[in-house]
Amino acid sequence: MERITAQYYIETPLDLEKAANILAGEQSSGTFIALPGETAELKQRFAARVESIVKMDSAHVPAIPSDKLVGGNYQRAMIEVSWSIENFGHNLPVMISTLQGNLYELTQFTGLKLMDITFPSSFANAFAGPKFGISGCRELTQVYDRPLIGTIIKPSIGMDPDQTAALVTELAHAGIDFIKDDELLGASANSPFDKRVDAIMKVINAHADRTGKKVMYAFNISAEIDQMQRNYEKIVNSGGTAAMVSLNSVGLSATKKIADLGALAIHGHRNGWGMLNRHPLLGIEFTAYQKIWRLCGVDQIHVNGIQNKFWESDDSVVSSIKACLTPLLGGYPILPVVSSGQWGGQAPETYRRTKTVDLLYMAGGGIMAHPNGPAGGVKALNQAWEAAVAGLTVEEAAIQYPEFGQSVKIFGK
Amino acid sequence: MERITAQYYIETPLDLEKAANILAGEQSSGTFIALPGETAELKQRFAARVESIVKMDSAHVPAIPSDKLVGGNYQRAMIEVSWSIENFGHNLPVMISTLQGNLYELTQFTGLKLMDITFPSSFANAFAGPKFGISGCRELTQVYDRPLIGTIIKPSIGMDPDQTAALVTELAHAGIDFIKDDELLGASANSPFDKRVDAIMKVINAHADRTGKKVMYAFNISAEIDQMQRNYEKIVNSGGTAAMVSLNSVGLSATKKIADLGALAIHGHRNGWGMLNRHPLLGIEFTAYQKIWRLCGVDQIHVNGIQNKFWESDDSVVSSIKACLTPLLGGYPILPVVSSGQWGGQAPETYRRTKTVDLLYMAGGGIMAHPNGPAGGVKALNQAWEAAVAGLTVEEAAIQYPEFGQSVKIFGK
Repeated sequence: MERITAQYYIETPLDLEKAANILAGEQSSGTFIALPGETAELKQRFAARVESIVKMDSAHVPAIPSDKLVGGNYQRAMIEVSWSIENFGHNLPVMISTLQGNLYELTQFTGLKLMDITFPSSFANAFAGPKFGISGCRELTQVYDRPLIGTIIKPSIGMDPDQTAALVTELAHAGIDFIKDDELLGASANSPFDKRVDAIMKVINAHADRTGKKVMYAFNISAEIDQMQRNYEKIVNSGGTAAMVSLNSVGLSATKKIADLGALAIHGHRNGWGMLNRHPLLGIEFTAYQKIWRLCGVDQIHVNGIQNKFWESDDSVVSSIKACLTPLLGGYPILPVVSSGQWGGQAPETYRRTKTVDLLYMAGGGIMAHPNGPAGGVKALNQAWEAAVAGLTVEEAAIQYPEFGQSVKIFGK
Repeated sequence: MERITAQYYIETPLDLEKAANILAGEQSSGTFIALPGETAELKQRFAARVESIVKMDSAHVPAIPSDKLVGGNYQRAMIEVSWSIENFGHNLPVMISTLQGNLYELTQFTGLKLMDITFPSSFANAFAGPKFGISGCRELTQVYDRPLIGTIIKPSIGMDPDQTAALVTELAHAGIDFIKDDELLGASANSPFDKRVDAIMKVINAHADRTGKKVMYAFNISAEIDQMQRNYEKIVNSGGTAAMVSLNSVGLSATKKIADLGALAIHGHRNGWGMLNRHPLLGIEFTAYQKIWRLCGVDQIHVNGIQNKFWESDDSVVSSIKACLTPLLGGYPILPVVSSGQWGGQAPETYRRTKTVDLLYMAGGGIMAHPNGPAGGVKALNQAWEAAVAGLTVEEAAIQYPEFGQSVKIFGK
């Protein structure tokens, strides 16, 4: 019978094997007293199984403060636990409750992070996955052999539809491939969703009619499910090509429903991610996280960026990009969205470390605040990537490309 | 204009006022360079506002490890930040992206927890809230003036519908008020959802016909939204009164959709909660968390239990129960679900500290492993609560009540 395997980074004051078995018991057939119904046959079929334990370093202070367990030595380890597909089938929410449920509550662990999940092959039949993925997003934007260049409408919130459409016009003329609403904007008092779509799509459609290039605009549809479906339909009926969903805020079941509609590329925003990942020994690692959203059918997912303005290290960003580009069950392609403090100067290092141009590369201020305006900003970003692929350093590129050179003067401090 | 206020517990190596303003900027109109569109008028209307800063203790080691900021002193504080209702209206997912979005990513904070949210009065018009709440759950089970006594089907996973129905028969005869699926069980290979509902509701309906008492069974409907709706309809059509949703796994938008259907009491399971709350300076506090789910219309929510088997302290459990019993916008009643290692011995302390019987009090092994079987277990729990309200100690109750006395001998070690 097929099994699903989860890898956890754990810390425990107990014997490692004992702790791992407590986790497996809690997340399959356990309670605090042995029960009559818990037959050997039932256990054989449904009990979670500890597959491996790899001992790592230890600490004298627990990773997460604990009132209940005071011990001398907190041992860390990487463990693998597996469940039969018979436990939850292809039900993602129940899978999550099994792999990420009460186990975080166990006193026996002073740290626990879900690092990775391995799905059996039947998952490939059960989940349609991203309807567009990397190649579909390229076709929609007609961008090949380089990253899609994108930007976020800023200020995040406060502009009315006409102001936003004016900015979109400027950006479209500047040659941008992708624009998105900020996650803070769903429908503000002065920017109702439908009016925003009308104003922006009018501009984008006109630009497409004129140039043959349709800018992909990811409207933030995040809301209750019925409203999200109405928002989605509005975009489809207006000729749009993408919708943005705040994955953690909307949640899994509603996001999957939206992604399964299949008419728009789904831009997955991971805001709230710091809560789930910022502690090294609590939560979920991006490798596991992005797999779940790929199964759900998300086409694009945020990975932060090299030298970002947030807490995340470059190593972590690189690892996230690689995770997105690694086939899942032979496919489920998802486009990594690079953003946060990006202005082009990070392109050479991003390319050096990932060797890919399969990215949606987003800059906010880096485009809007360019001395030549957005046109200069977009040009500078494309130059940065041309230089990056050619192996130039930032300094070399700044000499060769005037617009990028201007960016370096302003942002490269 | 109405404002929504969030309270955060923060830790920062920066000046407190500066750090608080960075948070407010990031979560309303900020980017890393000032933009032309960011007018004074726009800021006045949409910018988040720091309302208060209360300095607390400090530490020499950051609460959450950080590679980027190495400083000497990490100052803690309780701060309040407010947003105009004009920013996101009554859209809960966008509200969550605003109150719990990228702010966890800010390098300027080495700890950040959302402690509480204050909603303006218009929220009471926008959200129907729990359709049953405390009094509705009492009416459905005909239990008044004492806690509802409940249990979880154990083993968590592995029993087929007939085995489960046999157990439900035994529990119904034992006088139980409430039974639930484990969160690990949605539809296992040997317990398809519909067959389980058929087998269990046959027993429950027959028992109700005979005795006038309908046991509330919370079937775990957690799944993709369409499947959840089918599961929900199945329960309604079979005469059931409740559905369970794993809140964190299913997510907000789909949970609200289900709760709004209004025909079943919604049992909100918070599995995964440890990930969101276990660290004292990361995530969300239960006070804030339960308010969001009350707006969504959840009728019952887990709060752990006194002397639980998990990491959570009794103080935290007491605070959670009190949070549930505090009116929200004048209402939105939610029934706190006490569970985890409960057997009745915790009833006196639970009552002493909360002075309430408005609880769903759940015991697993505490009921099933009673020497007189489930009948003895249920009786012992009811005795424990009678004793608790009468102000008896565990020792006094053990002498007065034989079944509870037996529980003390087995579980009270």
